[in-house]
Amino acid sequence: MITLMTDFGIDDVFIGVMKGVILGINPAVRIVDLTHAVPPQSVEIGALLLRLAVPYFPEGTIHVALVDPGVGTECRSVAVETASGFLIGPDNGLLAPAAEQAGIRQIIECTNRRYWLPCVGPTFHGRDIYAPIAAHLSRGVTPESIGQAGAPLTPLALPVAERVRGPKRVEIRGKVVWVDHFGNLVTNITANEVKAFPRQELSVSIGNVVIDDFVSAYAAVPEGDLLALLNSWGLLEIALRNGSAAERVGAGRGAAVVVTAWPTAISNPQTT
Amino acid sequence: MITLMTDFGIDDVFIGVMKGVILGINPAVRIVDLTHAVPPQSVEIGALLLRLAVPYFPEGTIHVALVDPGVGTECRSVAVETASGFLIGPDNGLLAPAAEQAGIRQIIECTNRRYWLPCVGPTFHGRDIYAPIAAHLSRGVTPESIGQAGAPLTPLALPVAERVRGPKRVEIRGKVVWVDHFGNLVTNITANEVKAFPRQELSVSIGNVVIDDFVSAYAAVPEGDLLALLNSWGLLEIALRNGSAAERVGAGRGAAVVVTAWPTAISNPQTT
Amino acid sequence: MITLMTDFGIDDVFIGVMKGVILGINPAVRIVDLTHAVPPQSVEIGALLLRLAVPYFPEGTIHVALVDPGVGTECRSVAVETASGFLIGPDNGLLAPAAEQAGIRQIIECTNRRYWLPCVGPTFHGRDIYAPIAAHLSRGVTPESIGQAGAPLTPLALPVAERVRGPKRVEIRGKVVWVDHFGNLVTNITANEVKAFPRQELSVSIGNVVIDDFVSAYAAVPEGDLLALLNSWGLLEIALRNGSAAERVGAGRGAAVVVTAWPTAISNPQTT
Repeated sequence: MITLMTDFGIDDVFIGVMKGVILGINPAVRIVDLTHAVPPQSVEIGALLLRLAVPYFPEGTIHVALVDPGVGTECRSVAVETASGFLIGPDNGLLAPAAEQAGIRQIIECTNRRYWLPCVGPTFHGRDIYAPIAAHLSRGVTPESIGQAGAPLTPLALPVAERVRGPKRVEIRGKVVWVDHFGNLVTNITANEVKAFPRQELSVSIGNVVIDDFVSAYAAVPEGDLLALLNSWGLLEIALRNGSAAERVGAGRGAAVVVTAWPTAISNPQTT
Repeated sequence: MITLMTDFGIDDVFIGVMKGVILGINPAVRIVDLTHAVPPQSVEIGALLLRLAVPYFPEGTIHVALVDPGVGTECRSVAVETASGFLIGPDNGLLAPAAEQAGIRQIIECTNRRYWLPCVGPTFHGRDIYAPIAAHLSRGVTPESIGQAGAPLTPLALPVAERVRGPKRVEIRGKVVWVDHFGNLVTNITANEVKAFPRQELSVSIGNVVIDDFVSAYAAVPEGDLLALLNSWGLLEIALRNGSAAERVGAGRGAAVVVTAWPTAISNPQTT
Repeated sequence: MITLMTDFGIDDVFIGVMKGVILGINPAVRIVDLTHAVPPQSVEIGALLLRLAVPYFPEGTIHVALVDPGVGTECRSVAVETASGFLIGPDNGLLAPAAEQAGIRQIIECTNRRYWLPCVGPTFHGRDIYAPIAAHLSRGVTPESIGQAGAPLTPLALPVAERVRGPKRVEIRGKVVWVDHFGNLVTNITANEVKAFPRQELSVSIGNVVIDDFVSAYAAVPEGDLLALLNSWGLLEIALRNGSAAERVGAGRGAAVVVTAWPTAISNPQTT
């Protein structure tokens, strides 16, 4: 199976043409779109979504990810073999978090032009380099044939939340890393960071807004109320029951979010 | 075959991840997207689109539909076996019209956690419950294994048009139930309700606008003119030749639409 | 393999239903979406995208293209057998440029109702005529069975750039034919038309804006700068490094673009 994630959108024929190239080389392979709505050139969002999504795919899956502000320059094209499959894309940090999480086996620079399309244009490596390489790998071509062993990946440190311990309270300071289709504000504060405190002893704030309800499901609050919960990716999320938290709060990607654990919480740690 | 209909949009990785889960369980199954643009939490629109679409799929198709304002609460997850396949989703009315139309054979509550993902989060039952259940059913797991027989579906009455007979005219009063990509205003007035009258004796009104042309094809009127026709779903539709009727009329979902049959029409019923 | 290109968008169930019809007839066929975001009724844009995309698909591919301002009228439905596969759609010019490029073998009018759905509505020939015909062809039904040999295709002349030779300079006058997802302005000026001149002797103008940099990759200029390049489709493109040229220049489809070759360029022709 091959997955595709890009910032190409789906209004042009880019994605369709990549699939045509892939299926021309391996007519039997399955292709799944991860998403093509990564904001243009947003390597960090692409890296985050890829890291979240990859664990849900079966062993042997080949993930092609393309968010490439440097297309046409000397940025390396790499195929990373991991414990669970392959990640293919530009070496600009996009693949690094997903690759590290999956466990890197080897890094190949995709230099063997035999596995590219014959003519490579300056603006569409997805069609000319990445699609054919993924298709050839899916047919059983060995990674060693694709190119030579390469240097480690360019790292990308996804922002992590910071824990600040004061005399009277503990603050976990993170930020919004992704606003989903519903307007839910997904943060980089993980379940691990808050699970030591009883949920009812925590307050969550974003901008001037304090969220009273740290709950376990959207439907735990009345329609139109803000809430915080640990979502299905293990991340703290600020949501509005049946509405858009992004719109209500007037906040988006990058907004600071603070979880505060009050004294009783600190003195009575437990697993919620 | 498995189809997916949700209100998730396609900008996130939600749909891609559901497909990864499905193909991890049944690599051979075909997956078709019905649409992921149901307006957030609009169970009624989802139910309508599902009922319109299901008859065009082959026998044995498994339809997963997810529009779920109550995700994470006690809303039942059900698999409905029909005369033509399966419908899987929350029991909030979404499946009811399509299920009734297809012919209900049995209703199963999806309670057997053996066929869920091992970890179920609070916000993404599509990934954790519905995708794996659909995949297991597509592999031949019996519906009885998925859970126990359940109570009847929560009903959902899609709004129907009303027929009002006066001394001098008959009115069929309906409303816009769906505005499509082209801005066509699709109503709940069916072909059955108007076919007794000769088309040229009918007038169609929406807001202050009266449509003069009740025709048989968009192209039957000049470019830029409004028209009414019975569309390919058997529903009365108000359209603008090569433009958006929604924009021209300034009306959307829920707007009242009245078809009036004048005296000559009433006294000379016929099949058009 | 069957590809689908339409102006239907993906917010409705149109495309999903067409796939249901296809897979009901041929469960084994692969379906690829080219794009469904052709602007409504824009036959010319559809024809251009189809011509660009078709060469990247393997032999035998069946392309269904639907942009049809005349749906429901007497516009012929045609299946064109080419040297590389089939093109199916309305005979309104949409198929002509791609068909001519691929090499036309025969033109069939799709008149045999045996290969349509039993009931044909007035508004959705994609579901009722084109999807089933494509599916039957993909199963090996001969084109001759689908209908009778038809007259030549309605032609569509995609606009071509004009070359004007003056005493002191040569101008190539074209226009923007397509604005892609990134806001890149793709023109109808081809690589062939400019390759005779050294790139550094050319200037490119659109509206009042003169582009200084005629380069070979987006990343050849600093972030935020405008540039011109020959893109991966062999067309001159005006872009903004990591931004939207359409927004910056304030221009869109149809805008005039002029490439000027100055005296030194004219007197020193070479291949760049």
